[in-house]
Amino acid sequence: MKAMLSPVVGHLDPDFVKVMDSIKKMLRMVFRTANEITFPVSGTGSAGMETALTNLIEEGDEVVIGVAGVFGQRLADLATRLGARLHRVDAEWGRIVEPERIEQALRAAKAPKLVAIVHAETSTGIHQPIEEISKMAHARGALMVADGVTSLGCVPLEIDAWQIDACYSCTQKGIGAPPGLAPVTFSARAMEAVHKRKTPCRSWYFDLALIEKYWGPERVYHHTAPITMNYALYEALRIVVEEGLEARFQRHRANAAALQAGLGGMGLGLAAQEGFRLPQLTTVTVPSGIDEAKVRAQLLEKFNVEIGAGLGPLKGKVWRIGLMGESCKRENVMLILSALETILESMGFEIARGRSLAAADRAYNGAAA
Amino acid sequence: MKAMLSPVVGHLDPDFVKVMDSIKKMLRMVFRTANEITFPVSGTGSAGMETALTNLIEEGDEVVIGVAGVFGQRLADLATRLGARLHRVDAEWGRIVEPERIEQALRAAKAPKLVAIVHAETSTGIHQPIEEISKMAHARGALMVADGVTSLGCVPLEIDAWQIDACYSCTQKGIGAPPGLAPVTFSARAMEAVHKRKTPCRSWYFDLALIEKYWGPERVYHHTAPITMNYALYEALRIVVEEGLEARFQRHRANAAALQAGLGGMGLGLAAQEGFRLPQLTTVTVPSGIDEAKVRAQLLEKFNVEIGAGLGPLKGKVWRIGLMGESCKRENVMLILSALETILESMGFEIARGRSLAAADRAYNGAAA
Repeated sequence: MKAMLSPVVGHLDPDFVKVMDSIKKMLRMVFRTANEITFPVSGTGSAGMETALTNLIEEGDEVVIGVAGVFGQRLADLATRLGARLHRVDAEWGRIVEPERIEQALRAAKAPKLVAIVHAETSTGIHQPIEEISKMAHARGALMVADGVTSLGCVPLEIDAWQIDACYSCTQKGIGAPPGLAPVTFSARAMEAVHKRKTPCRSWYFDLALIEKYWGPERVYHHTAPITMNYALYEALRIVVEEGLEARFQRHRANAAALQAGLGGMGLGLAAQEGFRLPQLTTVTVPSGIDEAKVRAQLLEKFNVEIGAGLGPLKGKVWRIGLMGESCKRENVMLILSALETILESMGFEIARGRSLAAADRAYNGAAA
Repeated sequence: MKAMLSPVVGHLDPDFVKVMDSIKKMLRMVFRTANEITFPVSGTGSAGMETALTNLIEEGDEVVIGVAGVFGQRLADLATRLGARLHRVDAEWGRIVEPERIEQALRAAKAPKLVAIVHAETSTGIHQPIEEISKMAHARGALMVADGVTSLGCVPLEIDAWQIDACYSCTQKGIGAPPGLAPVTFSARAMEAVHKRKTPCRSWYFDLALIEKYWGPERVYHHTAPITMNYALYEALRIVVEEGLEARFQRHRANAAALQAGLGGMGLGLAAQEGFRLPQLTTVTVPSGIDEAKVRAQLLEKFNVEIGAGLGPLKGKVWRIGLMGESCKRENVMLILSALETILESMGFEIARGRSLAAADRAYNGAAA
């Protein structure tokens, strides 16, 4: 927050250029990539999604998209707007998209241009396996696009090792800055597809062929960058690098283990498929007879804690509890568990008092060990 | 800047909703409109341009665009990407686009969908008359789109009185906040065109039919708004409203009169067409024999003042001096004049010392009277 108070200089000021170069360097470390084209798009997370698809898809291109939540739907929606021939692979919300089903869709396509899927589906709490899907995509000559909005900085995301060709994220989740930018990275192969387009990119604001000249050594003016947000991202990345990615992932695992054990101790069930649960976003099944909106309102009013409602088919059925980036700390686990216990008990939900926090504590110590 | 330190709440938090409503209300005051659809797009100024055109243009639509600078070119470029049939009206950079030539283009078109033109062309310093062009557009059944990036908050811009159907701006110029958002406003007629589209908007991030449901009473989640930037805009708008638009315009006029008189006193010429010079952006003709880049570098290094280089056909031929929003103050006029005089004299440019500041002073007092 304090970094944002630095003087607002021009978007081509030599001092800002240094900030840009440091951001690119640190983003490469966090994305685990050597990709030259790695920078923050001047918009929030969805602007990153739009940058990836609007640059890589031309009208008539065949694309395979896995959909098992809001953000998979958004990918499919956007691909349709761009005139793609869509091979959509739907799965039940709260479960992964089975990689074999993506492979079937790839085989059904004539010349698939890309596969796109969400790595951490914020609407369901699912941790989607993507490495093997990337292999399948490449085996069919397609590019691999991964939505890393909720995964970057929370769980391992290996752009180069997994050969992801395009990935986008946001600043306000695993990176711990305010919302405002969408870090993206594109492989040389993806950039080749951008440069080989037969039709111009439909967007000027998100056109990589133009933006790369601003973020690259040429420094050609494109649009005015949100200077202040870049200061915030710079400082947040510095903190991520200082903590270290491995330590950061471990922190997310330990706190999630505590939260999920504590919820279990309270008698609440988890909604996401076992074995594929995200640490940074936990979906909890709302017990029958409980007014879920009232619980969220009380959490906000009485305890200053905001949790998410269910979306789409999960509306009214789940709560979504985020523990990401800076907010992922033990005191927040304790706070949400005790606040939830207090509120649910006041609504007549039977709870064996004390079991939840004890279970959380054991799990935390187990995970930290 | 300090407003950005407020806690980052959720994008649907009841407290943030209040901030959103206040921003909409103040933006309507500043745009001088009652338009319901008035809000900041989550990107910088060019994202506002893209929001206007990508929502209003469908493939094959005829559009008339006036081009006499970088931002007119950008409008034409974007319209082409969107598949518009472009009637382009070029004028010499540094001069206005004559309204009669727009009228000719409107007559040459079969069924023009819109006219788009830049109100304050930052690349040339030209103050383009737009009110009569708006009348011409409507007489032919076309929508009127005005680029207000460099005009909002600096010079009169009357959305309702001039019947502008779509206008976009930025936060870092006349409004005086850091860059990061693009305030936009759309008339009921423009929104009717949006709702009547036969093809989906090519952009998801900028789709007004979706965004209006987030910024409107429905509060449907679209994308995560850059919360912090909205705090900054809120506070900047509050300051604009406190100063009052008329007082703000007068401040810009007085300081520009001083700057332009001072430059004349130094023996420098102004590059923009007389009678159509912006107060907030002054283009100065570089004297022959002077290395213009060196002057800019010395201004930045020695005096911490950044001025712009010439762009396009004006590259190397002009400097661009901005006096907008917060930076538009008498001490900045004095600083740039005395710094420029010092640097130019050291480069052998003959200057009658003292005349510049005296002329500036007289002009300031005359304008302030």
